[in-house]
Amino acid sequence: MTDSRWLADLDAALPGGIRTSLSDRDQHGRDPGHPHGQAPDAVAYPTSSAEVARLVRVCHAHRRPVIPYGVGSSLEGHVSAPHGGLCIDLSRMDRIVALSADDMDVRVQAGVTRERLNDELRPLGLFFPIDPGANATLGGMASTRASGTNAVRYGTMRGNVMGLTVVTPQGDLIQTGSRARKSAAGYDLTALYVGSEGTLGVITEVLLRVYPLPQRIAAAVVQFPTLRAAVQSVIDTLAHSVPIARIELLDELQMRAINARSHLGYADLPTLFLEFHGGTASVDEQVATVREVMEGHGGSDFVWADRPEDRSRLWKARHEALWAGKDLRPGSDVLTTDVCVPISRLADCVLDTREDFDRRGLLAPIVGHVGDGNFHSLILFDPNDDREREQAHAAHEALILRALDMGGTCTGEHGIGIGKREFLAREHATGLPGMKAIKLALDPLGIMNPGKLFAD
Amino acid sequence: MTDSRWLADLDAALPGGIRTSLSDRDQHGRDPGHPHGQAPDAVAYPTSSAEVARLVRVCHAHRRPVIPYGVGSSLEGHVSAPHGGLCIDLSRMDRIVALSADDMDVRVQAGVTRERLNDELRPLGLFFPIDPGANATLGGMASTRASGTNAVRYGTMRGNVMGLTVVTPQGDLIQTGSRARKSAAGYDLTALYVGSEGTLGVITEVLLRVYPLPQRIAAAVVQFPTLRAAVQSVIDTLAHSVPIARIELLDELQMRAINARSHLGYADLPTLFLEFHGGTASVDEQVATVREVMEGHGGSDFVWADRPEDRSRLWKARHEALWAGKDLRPGSDVLTTDVCVPISRLADCVLDTREDFDRRGLLAPIVGHVGDGNFHSLILFDPNDDREREQAHAAHEALILRALDMGGTCTGEHGIGIGKREFLAREHATGLPGMKAIKLALDPLGIMNPGKLFAD
Repeated sequence: MTDSRWLADLDAALPGGIRTSLSDRDQHGRDPGHPHGQAPDAVAYPTSSAEVARLVRVCHAHRRPVIPYGVGSSLEGHVSAPHGGLCIDLSRMDRIVALSADDMDVRVQAGVTRERLNDELRPLGLFFPIDPGANATLGGMASTRASGTNAVRYGTMRGNVMGLTVVTPQGDLIQTGSRARKSAAGYDLTALYVGSEGTLGVITEVLLRVYPLPQRIAAAVVQFPTLRAAVQSVIDTLAHSVPIARIELLDELQMRAINARSHLGYADLPTLFLEFHGGTASVDEQVATVREVMEGHGGSDFVWADRPEDRSRLWKARHEALWAGKDLRPGSDVLTTDVCVPISRLADCVLDTREDFDRRGLLAPIVGHVGDGNFHSLILFDPNDDREREQAHAAHEALILRALDMGGTCTGEHGIGIGKREFLAREHATGLPGMKAIKLALDPLGIMNPGKLFAD
Repeated sequence: MTDSRWLADLDAALPGGIRTSLSDRDQHGRDPGHPHGQAPDAVAYPTSSAEVARLVRVCHAHRRPVIPYGVGSSLEGHVSAPHGGLCIDLSRMDRIVALSADDMDVRVQAGVTRERLNDELRPLGLFFPIDPGANATLGGMASTRASGTNAVRYGTMRGNVMGLTVVTPQGDLIQTGSRARKSAAGYDLTALYVGSEGTLGVITEVLLRVYPLPQRIAAAVVQFPTLRAAVQSVIDTLAHSVPIARIELLDELQMRAINARSHLGYADLPTLFLEFHGGTASVDEQVATVREVMEGHGGSDFVWADRPEDRSRLWKARHEALWAGKDLRPGSDVLTTDVCVPISRLADCVLDTREDFDRRGLLAPIVGHVGDGNFHSLILFDPNDDREREQAHAAHEALILRALDMGGTCTGEHGIGIGKREFLAREHATGLPGMKAIKLALDPLGIMNPGKLFAD
């Protein structure tokens, strides 16, 4: 139910920048994981932090929900508007605000995408390594504490966001962090807002750490007789202190899917995609160590992807794992899982999960950011078959309980959104009251992205 | 003013573990930076999280302050008890709770010191790199977001604490984080408690990330004609993507002090102490790159400290910089500064600061974690000379304003405590209301380490 005074005040706050057409609203309530999300009442397209602040002040005065939106590539219903309200689409906030090559930091508006940022950085010999696959916005990646294939070497958004500009639920503009590489000055508000999924304010600018492009990059593929051997070889690699940049696991089924879609021509075996960054001698040394470790676990010869175009093809295939998986069974829906466990438990977790899928008759290829202990299964199910849908959700719940029992987390990188609220409550049973107290203290009216993170 | 019912309840909560003698109380209110701190009313020596929870519940019921205490090596008055209350000395909580070599993580009670932890890790081929110099407790290091000489490579406590056990101000035990290497599950309470200086609860256990001991470690000393040349060579080194493990700057005055104390025999010139970690080929490659960079800035030949005992001697001398500085003028008090700035501004910041000290007639050697842009000046002043004391404090304030103007922070690693409350308010003027709202939400009675971080 819209409210004409609220809409009139929004129009006054951002003349010409408010849309209420059905198509605008519909496309802003959904994400690939929640295709049936609910539409907001209106969508705003601001171009500056000050405009966002004006919009939020209007919503605060009218007690209407505010839902921040980047490109809508999140997976857990983060952009759905179950209570209506204003979607703030940040895509027109796409300016690189300040870039210092000497300091290796960059300040961007929240709507800049990671590919766009890397296009700007490349000529300066720099890059931003966090790569969730999708060409997400940096504001969205900060909001969901994103990571991806490079996290084993470069960490997640948690470690690479140095500061933020945030519009509070009251419509005030605040700055967190600083350009100093480290600080012990007060509560770490930056880390609090990173991963808060829009429930504490709207992130409008992000100050990021960037890195020199590696002198040398080498990528390789190695295949294993068993999944356990592949995972054990990763544990050994990390114990040898190899600063490997990417180490991605794909199970037999996922390899079958990727071979079919991308025509890579590998065997349908448990496989690791590897990437090494460093000086020439350092990369040679890393490769020699890893090759020896992996041979010891029955790994195949390395198949190199050394030319940039071969590397791109390899990682493109990896990033298309979701679509390749769907091709295994056209017309199916996908439930994507995202647990992360201590790496010593990863092989058990993956194998127990595979067994559970088999027992339930579910088709579910598996890919993993295995250096971090994080893996995704893509559970394919017929949307018109209630029993299969129930089995998919039951397998998901069993997987999360398995991961929690092993000391892990229900989400390594996708976040909670609407989809995992009950699992957050289980995982952080003792911490949840503190989280809710913080939410209430900073957003007493509960207007910021309501219905996310917490079930009540 | 003590309260006999409160003390009786404390005794009942921890029979035989409460001390109220003057000597116990006096030694728990002071730190090296605030030697005239105020004593608590009583000191408790618990051995478990459950005992801490019982003690805090008693203080909560009586509305009496709680001040957590490790070894008292903080520098900003963190352990002073301006409103009396109970000091909780965690030194008897010195158990390694769980250690996994495969996962490279360890859970320790808060009173375990970093040297003790490294003694436990070494036989397993592991180490914990964060090294603030003092043999601090890991609970204290987490509370103050400590770092030190290795941070340029391994980060600070911010990035290396994976989870915590905390006793809330209400006396509840909560768990934050998990053993997963990454998680996107809810607000990052771990990062909120790290650096909160005991104002939100008592950290009783710390889950830490540890690292494989480097295959090879090499340390070297290189001297420069000017301080600017030394700093510029560091910027170039970082731009070359060299994963250097330590890169410490000492100015002429600090070198004179260290040479006098530790008989190292170097010239009294701006100097870098370097350490390289990695595989043999990788270290060779790092050294070759850095040597070429530093020669280009007029650096001397490297003087190697390759044997473990030579390295220990070098870093011991570095860690004793404070005492060496004091030897320059026996009987003086020291005001230790801790700003951190973007590295492109570091040379200007240090040189402007040196000029300001000279103009004020202050003797103040400078040491810096230069890879992070963090440096300390040790301002020596006669405690009986009011004018000199005022000049020291005026120079400190000028330095902090200079650092903030450059986009930096008033404290890189020592924290706010009592000493820098007004500077926190300046640095985070827009963020301070949020910090205070969180404090009020989690500790509405204000019993946790009152008088720290915030002036009111």
